[in-house]
Amino acid sequence: METQNKKDLAHARTKASFNITDMTNYLHNGPENVEHRRYIIDLIAKEPIFQKDDWAWLNHTDAVNRGVAMSTRLAEIIIENDLNDLDFATCLEAIDDTIPILLHNGAFIPVINSQGTDEQIEKWIPAAQKFQIIGCYAQTELGHGSNLSQLETTATFIKETDEWEINSTSFTASKWWIGGLGTLATHAVVQARLFIDGKDYGAHVFVVPIRSLEDHTPFPGIEVGDIGPKAYNGFNKMDNGFARFNKYRIPRENMLMRFSKVSREGVFTKPPHAKLSYGSMVLLRSVLIKQMAFHLSRATTVSTRYLTVRRQFNNPTSRNDADINPGLETQVINYPMVQNRLFPMIAQAYALFAAGSVMMDMYIRLMTSMSNGNIGALAEVHAMSSSLKSYCTTIGAAGAEECRKLMGGHGFSYFTGLSHLFATIVPSNTYEGDNYVLTQQMARYLLKEVKVARNDPEKSGADPSNEKTWSDYNIECYRVSHAHAQYILTLWFIQSIREAQSPENDDERRIEPATAKVLERLSHLHALHTIQTNLADFVEDGYFSPAQCSSLRAQVKVLVASLADDAVGLVDAFDHPDFLLNSALGASDGDAYKRLWDKAQMEPLNKKPVCDGYEKYIRPLLKKHGEVKL
Amino acid sequence: METQNKKDLAHARTKASFNITDMTNYLHNGPENVEHRRYIIDLIAKEPIFQKDDWAWLNHTDAVNRGVAMSTRLAEIIIENDLNDLDFATCLEAIDDTIPILLHNGAFIPVINSQGTDEQIEKWIPAAQKFQIIGCYAQTELGHGSNLSQLETTATFIKETDEWEINSTSFTASKWWIGGLGTLATHAVVQARLFIDGKDYGAHVFVVPIRSLEDHTPFPGIEVGDIGPKAYNGFNKMDNGFARFNKYRIPRENMLMRFSKVSREGVFTKPPHAKLSYGSMVLLRSVLIKQMAFHLSRATTVSTRYLTVRRQFNNPTSRNDADINPGLETQVINYPMVQNRLFPMIAQAYALFAAGSVMMDMYIRLMTSMSNGNIGALAEVHAMSSSLKSYCTTIGAAGAEECRKLMGGHGFSYFTGLSHLFATIVPSNTYEGDNYVLTQQMARYLLKEVKVARNDPEKSGADPSNEKTWSDYNIECYRVSHAHAQYILTLWFIQSIREAQSPENDDERRIEPATAKVLERLSHLHALHTIQTNLADFVEDGYFSPAQCSSLRAQVKVLVASLADDAVGLVDAFDHPDFLLNSALGASDGDAYKRLWDKAQMEPLNKKPVCDGYEKYIRPLLKKHGEVKL
Repeated sequence: METQNKKDLAHARTKASFNITDMTNYLHNGPENVEHRRYIIDLIAKEPIFQKDDWAWLNHTDAVNRGVAMSTRLAEIIIENDLNDLDFATCLEAIDDTIPILLHNGAFIPVINSQGTDEQIEKWIPAAQKFQIIGCYAQTELGHGSNLSQLETTATFIKETDEWEINSTSFTASKWWIGGLGTLATHAVVQARLFIDGKDYGAHVFVVPIRSLEDHTPFPGIEVGDIGPKAYNGFNKMDNGFARFNKYRIPRENMLMRFSKVSREGVFTKPPHAKLSYGSMVLLRSVLIKQMAFHLSRATTVSTRYLTVRRQFNNPTSRNDADINPGLETQVINYPMVQNRLFPMIAQAYALFAAGSVMMDMYIRLMTSMSNGNIGALAEVHAMSSSLKSYCTTIGAAGAEECRKLMGGHGFSYFTGLSHLFATIVPSNTYEGDNYVLTQQMARYLLKEVKVARNDPEKSGADPSNEKTWSDYNIECYRVSHAHAQYILTLWFIQSIREAQSPENDDERRIEPATAKVLERLSHLHALHTIQTNLADFVEDGYFSPAQCSSLRAQVKVLVASLADDAVGLVDAFDHPDFLLNSALGASDGDAYKRLWDKAQMEPLNKKPVCDGYEKYIRPLLKKHGEVKL
Repeated sequence: METQNKKDLAHARTKASFNITDMTNYLHNGPENVEHRRYIIDLIAKEPIFQKDDWAWLNHTDAVNRGVAMSTRLAEIIIENDLNDLDFATCLEAIDDTIPILLHNGAFIPVINSQGTDEQIEKWIPAAQKFQIIGCYAQTELGHGSNLSQLETTATFIKETDEWEINSTSFTASKWWIGGLGTLATHAVVQARLFIDGKDYGAHVFVVPIRSLEDHTPFPGIEVGDIGPKAYNGFNKMDNGFARFNKYRIPRENMLMRFSKVSREGVFTKPPHAKLSYGSMVLLRSVLIKQMAFHLSRATTVSTRYLTVRRQFNNPTSRNDADINPGLETQVINYPMVQNRLFPMIAQAYALFAAGSVMMDMYIRLMTSMSNGNIGALAEVHAMSSSLKSYCTTIGAAGAEECRKLMGGHGFSYFTGLSHLFATIVPSNTYEGDNYVLTQQMARYLLKEVKVARNDPEKSGADPSNEKTWSDYNIECYRVSHAHAQYILTLWFIQSIREAQSPENDDERRIEPATAKVLERLSHLHALHTIQTNLADFVEDGYFSPAQCSSLRAQVKVLVASLADDAVGLVDAFDHPDFLLNSALGASDGDAYKRLWDKAQMEPLNKKPVCDGYEKYIRPLLKKHGEVKL
């Protein structure tokens, strides 16, 4: 049946001023990548175990069991198709949830590869790649997350037997939040403070066998389990786990020794550069920026499509489709308030796509130069990834929730798909460095650079005076770091559009003029809206006069209105298939009400005409004070 | 065991500069109300059916079944203890979730009482009060929420049989989101467009029998069910339902006729005032403001307590407990950044308490004057409740999520209690009037008042010109309305503190000077922080110079720091018992880590040493490429 909903979305699609395929190629870096991404998503979409129809009803226990089954099938798919790390990330994007295998490929293997010696890599990695062992990464404890140097898990060298004794020295030493540890992992890379002869050498990493390869039972001396449900049902299929070690012994060679080393005699050797292991943090944060592009583009896709088919009230003067649909109410997306909330987020999603690509390139260049022993760029890239991680995950999570609220009443249904999305994104605001704590990295770096620029080298190092500490300037650090992230995001977005128009590109990579035109509007909107959101800072520092504030607000409105015909095309260009969106209200055919109805019919309560509690609870209440006829 | 966590919270409690009981009496309007609230909460807390231990694992289907059982027990408690509407609200506060009976007392009875004739009240209300019938309120449809006049459910007068024919005229006419309808209700008050001889008289309310009082089966001609899970597992125990009517007949006298009437002959009579039925909207919105005080105070309680016992890093110069705990890391609550995020929300919670009381008094005064036929105050009170509802539910939901994020990594556990809280609050941003749409009410009212003040009566009415409509000014309406709400909240908070010090109060109601002193600090912080959050508006309009902005920021910091010793006392004073908080991290004894551990042990996955999927999924994967010994 051709519902009005479907007609409305189809009609809106015809209005785009640019070629959607051309835009998709820009976003995903060329047609080969677009095709490859679709191919990988389809590997997942066609498998029964990855279907999402019953997710709304899984509690944590059932969800983890599902996550285990999904994990093992994903492992097989990786081997069958010889997938690389980028493909693995695309698989997870299509799967659309965290599952227990995530940290095996996402942390266990990379940490061994980067911190293990060649012999250790040879020992562990082939087995890990064939999933003969499955690993996780155990850093956080009940009592410590950010402050690595105060972890309470210890690894004490036992010279007599050439072993480490791994011990949870207190209740709060329990490892906590460890993805994969709750049910699946056979091994963990464990962060523990290294002790030799009573001396503390700080946190180091050790490969620790957790469960028997014979029958999967935890080894004696290890207490291990799942930490239970998370906020908003987020990470529901992930077996975030806990572990306590009771003087548990592992061989000396299970310490990863590419950097620090401990000899048979118990002699500790420091690494040449203390910060060599920062690389993996930079990677994780860079990946998060790319993920936010993906998340916010999904959220705006769902919201834009639904608001195009939703009609409410009649606004006689706003942009409307009264030419073809006289007598119908106004499409909600045609209200200026809605456009002014939604379109800046579409612009942000585009900016995030550009930032994700640039940041990842920057990381790859850093790794190349570091592998040649050159750590000159580390400080800047580390500060950049920290600052952008903090800002981008903040706007990503807030944007997903704003897109949900834009959908009004129906936005509170599970079947928007956006509550699941928010629940998946929002922990990124507090993990891999809390978004507030993290901003100190960029603030420190900028202060150092300012001092260098002022040619004041003896005072560089950015140490505060004796009276005040960094903590006393945390608010200022946060403001400075986010402002810098906004600047970088704006800059990279504009650069990305310029590069995409460069005559040096081959034809397939060069965008069409119509594409460039709408991208330029988006980049202007992104820049001006970002300023508007932080307007006080600009006025306070004299960059804007009060009169200019009002011009700015007017110009934001003009830019927003200019994107009205392109909105559906802009979100279509993100190229997120319905399988991935998993949204009744945001599906590509626009049939929102029909799909919402169909989803409701899946509710198990509706299988019976009278609910389970009737005889036991409802009937006795209704009859308690006698019968009535009404 | 006396853990460090417990010691830390106990020590922080000793620092308060005021008497906590005196503050609690201020917040809850006197010692009798404090005692009564505790008594009512205890009525709930002692019942097995209201225990919350397994909530984290209930899916929607199980949760609704639980909600039905909770509903019938609550009904019995209401009768057994002869509870009034305020007590009912306190019961729901203690129950801490929406359950199917909610709209019976919350909407079905009030709507019949306010819109039914004396005969209709006599017919329906005694049976409803004895729960011989259970009702709900069916307004929203799949295709329409805000725009009541375009509802697609019709009630057509059938003169031959003296009946109404209730009909869902299209697919999108399906009633949707109706709490209580999914499983529990026997009756619904249904909003439908009234037709007589083909003429549309607009939306009116009808009492419609839904399920048989004999066996609870839906009546022929009615298709009814549950709409399924909601975002973030919010309203999980509520059976939000759908219904479609297929030319379903009810007697003429089932139309509620206190205002509009239809005679046996089919003659329609208009009510004397078109807006007489606005009263119930004002009530619902006023109640929401009170609820936000309750919600945000809960969230800040949990966050403040946990951050007092959480220690991380060492900040040598910030306020610390190094005098009694040398060598321990700094309590997280002692970081200025944390205080500057958290304490303004404590101040907001206090402001919301004051606003909730004033708004409710205003509603009661309005009802009294309206029952005397005087609707003069309706416009102002309606605008005020709309504006405050929009602003207060916005800061309430955002604050709950901010409190959760303040707790860092552990904040993502379900066992903070705050994700459940946010999921319960956040739909209030889109129901009972979307928070953006709703702001037009106050903007219209203010514009009218400005014109009256300018003595320009012939132009009053606040109609926009021909070229522009209200929709084109929605952004400005939103800004103006929220600014006014901020002003009102600030004003009422200050007035409330003044009144509480008045010598005219009897001793029990007059606060002590130490209490007044900390309240004044809170009110100053609330005012200045609100300005800081919206600083661009103040600078843009010339109320603040750039130099004053920096003084303002400095003064906010000073006020925040001045509240450090009082934070725990201020949240203790809200008087939320542990049963109500249901939070491992925010319990009154401070034993956060121990409680988090204990909660994790309840995870069903931990009952077996090896997870269910091992034989079927994990073992085949591990063994597929041969065994390894590692």
